[in-house]
Amino acid sequence: MYRSRPKGNLEPESLNFMSSLQVDNEIASYDILGTQAHVIMLYEKNLLRLEILKKILCELQILRRNPKQLEMKGCEDIHEALETHLVKKLGIEVGGRIQTGRSRNDQVILDVRMKARDEINSISSKIIILIERILRKAEENLDSVMPLYTHLQQAQIGNLAHYFLAYSEQLFRDLERLSFAYTGINKSPLGSGPVGGSTIPIDRKRTALLLGFEGLITNSIDATSSRDAILELMSTLSILMVTLSRIAEDIIIWSTQEFGYVEIADNFASTSSAMPHKKNPDPLELVRSKTALVAGNLLTAITILKGLPSGYSRDLQDLKVVFLNSLSVVSSSLGISDAIIKSLMIHKRRMKQTVLDSYASSIDIAEQLVMKKGLAFRTAHRLSGSLVKLAISKKMVPLSSLSKHELEPIIVETSSHLKVEELLKILAEVTPEKSVLLRSSEGSPNPVQQKLAIKLLKVRAQKYSDKLAKRRKHLNYALDSLENVVSSYTKM
Amino acid sequence: MYRSRPKGNLEPESLNFMSSLQVDNEIASYDILGTQAHVIMLYEKNLLRLEILKKILCELQILRRNPKQLEMKGCEDIHEALETHLVKKLGIEVGGRIQTGRSRNDQVILDVRMKARDEINSISSKIIILIERILRKAEENLDSVMPLYTHLQQAQIGNLAHYFLAYSEQLFRDLERLSFAYTGINKSPLGSGPVGGSTIPIDRKRTALLLGFEGLITNSIDATSSRDAILELMSTLSILMVTLSRIAEDIIIWSTQEFGYVEIADNFASTSSAMPHKKNPDPLELVRSKTALVAGNLLTAITILKGLPSGYSRDLQDLKVVFLNSLSVVSSSLGISDAIIKSLMIHKRRMKQTVLDSYASSIDIAEQLVMKKGLAFRTAHRLSGSLVKLAISKKMVPLSSLSKHELEPIIVETSSHLKVEELLKILAEVTPEKSVLLRSSEGSPNPVQQKLAIKLLKVRAQKYSDKLAKRRKHLNYALDSLENVVSSYTKM
Amino acid sequence: MYRSRPKGNLEPESLNFMSSLQVDNEIASYDILGTQAHVIMLYEKNLLRLEILKKILCELQILRRNPKQLEMKGCEDIHEALETHLVKKLGIEVGGRIQTGRSRNDQVILDVRMKARDEINSISSKIIILIERILRKAEENLDSVMPLYTHLQQAQIGNLAHYFLAYSEQLFRDLERLSFAYTGINKSPLGSGPVGGSTIPIDRKRTALLLGFEGLITNSIDATSSRDAILELMSTLSILMVTLSRIAEDIIIWSTQEFGYVEIADNFASTSSAMPHKKNPDPLELVRSKTALVAGNLLTAITILKGLPSGYSRDLQDLKVVFLNSLSVVSSSLGISDAIIKSLMIHKRRMKQTVLDSYASSIDIAEQLVMKKGLAFRTAHRLSGSLVKLAISKKMVPLSSLSKHELEPIIVETSSHLKVEELLKILAEVTPEKSVLLRSSEGSPNPVQQKLAIKLLKVRAQKYSDKLAKRRKHLNYALDSLENVVSSYTKM
Amino acid sequence: MYRSRPKGNLEPESLNFMSSLQVDNEIASYDILGTQAHVIMLYEKNLLRLEILKKILCELQILRRNPKQLEMKGCEDIHEALETHLVKKLGIEVGGRIQTGRSRNDQVILDVRMKARDEINSISSKIIILIERILRKAEENLDSVMPLYTHLQQAQIGNLAHYFLAYSEQLFRDLERLSFAYTGINKSPLGSGPVGGSTIPIDRKRTALLLGFEGLITNSIDATSSRDAILELMSTLSILMVTLSRIAEDIIIWSTQEFGYVEIADNFASTSSAMPHKKNPDPLELVRSKTALVAGNLLTAITILKGLPSGYSRDLQDLKVVFLNSLSVVSSSLGISDAIIKSLMIHKRRMKQTVLDSYASSIDIAEQLVMKKGLAFRTAHRLSGSLVKLAISKKMVPLSSLSKHELEPIIVETSSHLKVEELLKILAEVTPEKSVLLRSSEGSPNPVQQKLAIKLLKVRAQKYSDKLAKRRKHLNYALDSLENVVSSYTKM
Repeated sequence: MYRSRPKGNLEPESLNFMSSLQVDNEIASYDILGTQAHVIMLYEKNLLRLEILKKILCELQILRRNPKQLEMKGCEDIHEALETHLVKKLGIEVGGRIQTGRSRNDQVILDVRMKARDEINSISSKIIILIERILRKAEENLDSVMPLYTHLQQAQIGNLAHYFLAYSEQLFRDLERLSFAYTGINKSPLGSGPVGGSTIPIDRKRTALLLGFEGLITNSIDATSSRDAILELMSTLSILMVTLSRIAEDIIIWSTQEFGYVEIADNFASTSSAMPHKKNPDPLELVRSKTALVAGNLLTAITILKGLPSGYSRDLQDLKVVFLNSLSVVSSSLGISDAIIKSLMIHKRRMKQTVLDSYASSIDIAEQLVMKKGLAFRTAHRLSGSLVKLAISKKMVPLSSLSKHELEPIIVETSSHLKVEELLKILAEVTPEKSVLLRSSEGSPNPVQQKLAIKLLKVRAQKYSDKLAKRRKHLNYALDSLENVVSSYTKM
Repeated sequence: MYRSRPKGNLEPESLNFMSSLQVDNEIASYDILGTQAHVIMLYEKNLLRLEILKKILCELQILRRNPKQLEMKGCEDIHEALETHLVKKLGIEVGGRIQTGRSRNDQVILDVRMKARDEINSISSKIIILIERILRKAEENLDSVMPLYTHLQQAQIGNLAHYFLAYSEQLFRDLERLSFAYTGINKSPLGSGPVGGSTIPIDRKRTALLLGFEGLITNSIDATSSRDAILELMSTLSILMVTLSRIAEDIIIWSTQEFGYVEIADNFASTSSAMPHKKNPDPLELVRSKTALVAGNLLTAITILKGLPSGYSRDLQDLKVVFLNSLSVVSSSLGISDAIIKSLMIHKRRMKQTVLDSYASSIDIAEQLVMKKGLAFRTAHRLSGSLVKLAISKKMVPLSSLSKHELEPIIVETSSHLKVEELLKILAEVTPEKSVLLRSSEGSPNPVQQKLAIKLLKVRAQKYSDKLAKRRKHLNYALDSLENVVSSYTKM
Repeated sequence: MYRSRPKGNLEPESLNFMSSLQVDNEIASYDILGTQAHVIMLYEKNLLRLEILKKILCELQILRRNPKQLEMKGCEDIHEALETHLVKKLGIEVGGRIQTGRSRNDQVILDVRMKARDEINSISSKIIILIERILRKAEENLDSVMPLYTHLQQAQIGNLAHYFLAYSEQLFRDLERLSFAYTGINKSPLGSGPVGGSTIPIDRKRTALLLGFEGLITNSIDATSSRDAILELMSTLSILMVTLSRIAEDIIIWSTQEFGYVEIADNFASTSSAMPHKKNPDPLELVRSKTALVAGNLLTAITILKGLPSGYSRDLQDLKVVFLNSLSVVSSSLGISDAIIKSLMIHKRRMKQTVLDSYASSIDIAEQLVMKKGLAFRTAHRLSGSLVKLAISKKMVPLSSLSKHELEPIIVETSSHLKVEELLKILAEVTPEKSVLLRSSEGSPNPVQQKLAIKLLKVRAQKYSDKLAKRRKHLNYALDSLENVVSSYTKM
Repeated sequence: MYRSRPKGNLEPESLNFMSSLQVDNEIASYDILGTQAHVIMLYEKNLLRLEILKKILCELQILRRNPKQLEMKGCEDIHEALETHLVKKLGIEVGGRIQTGRSRNDQVILDVRMKARDEINSISSKIIILIERILRKAEENLDSVMPLYTHLQQAQIGNLAHYFLAYSEQLFRDLERLSFAYTGINKSPLGSGPVGGSTIPIDRKRTALLLGFEGLITNSIDATSSRDAILELMSTLSILMVTLSRIAEDIIIWSTQEFGYVEIADNFASTSSAMPHKKNPDPLELVRSKTALVAGNLLTAITILKGLPSGYSRDLQDLKVVFLNSLSVVSSSLGISDAIIKSLMIHKRRMKQTVLDSYASSIDIAEQLVMKKGLAFRTAHRLSGSLVKLAISKKMVPLSSLSKHELEPIIVETSSHLKVEELLKILAEVTPEKSVLLRSSEGSPNPVQQKLAIKLLKVRAQKYSDKLAKRRKHLNYALDSLENVVSSYTKM
């Protein structure tokens, strides 16, 4: 279609290697919308006659309703396919006018931005659903006392709700990042031409408005060859996947027979072709591996862009490929994460038993020695550590079972002025079960505080939900208006 | 210092492998400030006696002024070194109290966040300087007509200013991303304990205020083990480096003898140990490679975090290492980029000559045929392409030198109703030199529009500069206040 | 099919998320072959009756010839689909026996290894073709004198052949690495069970022999969960792509109007939808971006594997996905690179002119001063550099045009005992054109040496070709033998 | 030193940005050796007078013994520093001759290759030590029966030795890859000049021999600008780190209180500043994060190289930086892994108890039903799965405790012709404890086979050890000979 200077057609091998059609179906509908807006603007600027506009708009409406009519074969990409289709249907005198003042270079990034903003909204919506699910789970598990882990070792006593609250905080930040990325994405590059704009007196603001953008990427080199907004979004998606991956990792570990805290519902678990007893958390493992995929895509994108001078290069086509892949992977990973958490079984009894057997209240003991007996924390830490060392050597007895006789040398050793009775009293009071209730710092797993946190986080989820609805409404309004303009012109 | 339960000391090999002291000097000053704020809060909450507070504050002030007094050997990290120092100097009854209600897990991320916000401000300041430099260069090069490139091939006629304007737009977005990242970074994790908070009634809002933070990372698991804010910042730095790398790539290409558009100042160019005539753009090449470094660091960080369950793990130490490395690399890359652009020599004559020899106005000819003669763009494209094909076959003559006799068959071939005289007139009018002046779309390299853009971008630079100044002022105010509080307590 | 313990079926959402069927068609034929070998061994070990063997083999032969009969829907992967098909066709008493002593965990890596060794052979073959093409191009371009570049600056005088020879050396190393990787890949994991082998007395050596493997991956944990051989191959592919990317980068730069050394054939070049004069090296740009893709895939694979404990995890499924993607991308990139180099046009005259205008013989002058006049190299370097500086200041005159009068102060300045006539003589002799002929070190672009190199490299290519043919013959022999065994049993 | 053409000195900022001195101390000794070999060759080819040779050699010997005499300040790199030092000490007429027929471009990659081959040998030696350690641990743990895991779920019964044997197999492959990489590394690039060789009649084979290389990188473009051998080695190191990381991950998981299979020795474990009871496997966590580091370095290196045309560019300097970093990280990670495994405590009783409580023998039961009762495996799988489902529902009773009454409906359900007594007998026989002894496939954890494997692997370790010793001997011989040549010339 475009080969005015080079002789002959592309070698099939070359065409095949260069084609982006395999992924272009994901942006085809945006290409049609963008073309509608463009020709409307051309008409309004007297650059196209009404009868030509009508023919083009009608044919594009047909394609929107029946995209399969668009023959892709023999074309490099959706843009060439679309023009070829229109020329074939309407003649070159009509179809050959749609690229007036437009180039594939501004067109492709227009499509990508329209796709991206829709996907940001869809992904954001899924995050909000996941957050709300998690908050509900948190509420149900305020009493699911369990150890909190650092270094995968029992660290302090907490509860399952505390993990869920941590997840929701992280997901809120992912949401914020997406919201910020949206602002960067939702600007129109259309009208930048191949790299240096056009001598045709087009109206960029008009097409931007018709397509629901808030502003332009003004400079024409920048608009056609920058992809920082895409890198930013891919980073944001990678970070979101890391959030999901860490949640998945937690649940995978807790699902082992050895931890036994939770269990994935049967209809989400896979089994073994060989081992009949198996119940595996495969979807969560795939969330982990897909995190690596999305990170690999980000690296691919950075590496592609890093190697380029300014101005569009075909390398950017593969950046589009990995970008679209990441969007799709993230979307399905969110869905599956939500479904699994929704149906997750919680084994509270097992958690409780583990807490009772744990030394994870050793820090609470040290802190009580500080607060009640005025010990320096470092001294209290030593004393408490020595108690644990002794209890372990006694085949893992509870700290509260240590006798006066055993405690005395430890007190002497740490040269504190503590009386052994005082220590005994503290050991009796600061049991693993009571640990969480003693916790007083802001953001700690004390259920009183957690209830407050849940309340605030629910409000926050609602706020984001409203914000997202507004964003979508704005887009829908613009696209409905475009539809109306199309209708009114075609009926003229 | 902390080995209450494990027997004996760490093997030197193990200590050496685990130590983060090599990089901890970059966060030492923040550890001291954080400790000051923490003990002040402990005192104010009646968790520390005044005389103890005074001793600790005094010793910390000494260290702030003379950081070399801090002996690091034998310690795993700065936090252990600091407590060890204080215990050694002031006794365990005093120094042994600074970790009351605090853990290395909230402490290290506190330090990293304080470091990060200072670095964001410093880097932002360097970006603003670079933008202002580039805008000045743009102003000086509105008349530096040159081809704009796509696929590294001459594409449309433009000017050097258009590249500079594109760079500044990109850098503004980098600035915006840093500004957004700042908001995420500038929240206090202090008071989260190791993972589950503390039973000590600490006041997290107070320490946050003393240290200039705007809000808390509330949930204690989240505060100690999330690093999404760091990943976000590292992504932002990677994207910024990609911007710089593409600028570097442009200048490296333009600096070749073959392009010859620009020349790096001698005092920034390297030469060869072997080839006396060489003048190489080495610093720009290093900006490119350092982009790969910063991207590699990002990948390292993502890979580290992706592999972890919730809760602090020592893996995060290496995340800190690559993060600090990226901050430092970005900072120096910005400095060198600015210095090189500042002293860059522009060979306007060479640019002009290249434009005159170029066929990059072929799109302008096609567009004029559309506008003036009503041709469909695709028809005009073919016609213009045929002209170029012919001109190339005639040993690269200018299009305007093609004769009536030569043009006629081309007009026939493209079956347009064009008269040959009309075509001749357009070819005479639409020369490469006039190309830029014909450009009319918003964001194109028409100097009238560029002047407007420069004006707007300067205002924007000022706005960011003010915003940054305000951000710094807020921080300085907080830290000055902390200094005052320290003073007043030590003098009590 | 396998859900003996978990209740009910998988949720469709979960099945969809977990399914690997989209890529499994690439390994389906290997799964059938592997199953044939496995059941033959079972029969030979008296673990299967002949009539059952015959039924299974017959049905598998049908599938081999008509793979579309294999219904994939509702299955997680090819292995489940295959057993489901056989059970459906032959009943559970027949089809339900194929997994005796076998698991999906050893089966999938068997398939992947069989696929990998075929692809290594196919890719190796393409590399040899490319090398032979490049060597032919080298022969044709021994007289294509051009500057060699460092830092993208003209460095020394050389010729185009020298680049081609460098490419062929690099490709030979890529070939060697593939050959080494082949040895690691071509070992059988079959018979390792899910992770700990089987109590069924299977004969692992027999299936390995039937499938053409040279040896076993013995340890069953290792065999089912290691993927280092895949990482190794993916690294090797990444390095190969870097070779291709650098070749592409060279040609892209040389194809600019400014360099003008080479030109891609029209039927491999893309043009612009907007700019009629454009002829872009798009396929080469895509070779560059696909290098980033293959590197991104490597990173994904490393990140996936790095996060796993020993033993199969579902994460490995996505490792398979990116691995298969890399194999396919590398294969097509080699094909296109070969086609482009084959049809590349060389502009020898332009190269020659550039050489004549170049100062890249300055090192030759310095070296001649060392050899003929005994100057220390550093002194000669300074003198030669001063000549260049002077010539540049005289608007880029050739060094040989500098006058006695101009040379004298430079000689004095570098305090050498050189007579000006001697210098004049050297400048007259050591012209850019003669530069290459003066070159004497091994591996330099002196055509005498290059001819020798081409001869040796051709022999080397033949040697690799023979080696590859032998490797393929071995595989074909094994698979033909398997076919014969299948035939003989089915006819029993 | 080299600035013959560019005016004035480098800006300090630029020098600082470009300097590689921070890492060059790691290659300084090789630069000296390379220079010695080079000047000896120059003398032998009559390109240097004896007295000059002697002076240079003497001064270089002094530097070798006292490297701190080498002043680095003001220089870009070690090569410039070395020449500057010699010129300062011996005058330009002597020191100014060392770069005759040599360039920094061939020099730096010479140094890097010499460093790399020494490091390969050192790392290989550490791997062999680790393998031997692991084999000894395997021998000691043939009776440490424990579950083998897939998806982190109990899969089959095995023993700890089986993991150790898997590790050793993997490490052997790492060793093989290093050995292969060594061959690629150990070739001399010296004598390639900056990119196109030299007109000086140097003898490249002679310097290669003096420095212990086996052959040349012949082509001068290739020799100076290829880095595939480095990428290959960095990939190999990444894969090795993945091996170590997965070992670390296993041990970290087994070290949890919940698994409780192993325990790290106190002198390798870290504790908490806050939680006195903590004993954390920090060094293993750092092995994991350093794996990410080494992978990030690989990506940096690929990204750097991918962006370059042929010919040396300064970007390669940063490739050197990350390469040297990876070498050092890998070396220390191997050391610490060995030390930790050496002192690892094994809790056999805990393992045994877990096995007794496990359903991981369900596959053995299914297989026995196949072998002894002729059931189709899929039928047996279903039956065994139903048994497990029932046992779990009975609060996790052992399979052998299921009653005749309970088994009957399951037999009916799976419609097998099995008699319930037969099933009861199999359940009584195939207990978790006996599981391993029933295993018969090659490479399974049957101790009889494991003992054989250990024997073979020990022989293999010895073979590698011998091979490595030979490689080192060859190098030492060459360097001793060089030392002798230096001595004999300096005494002439």
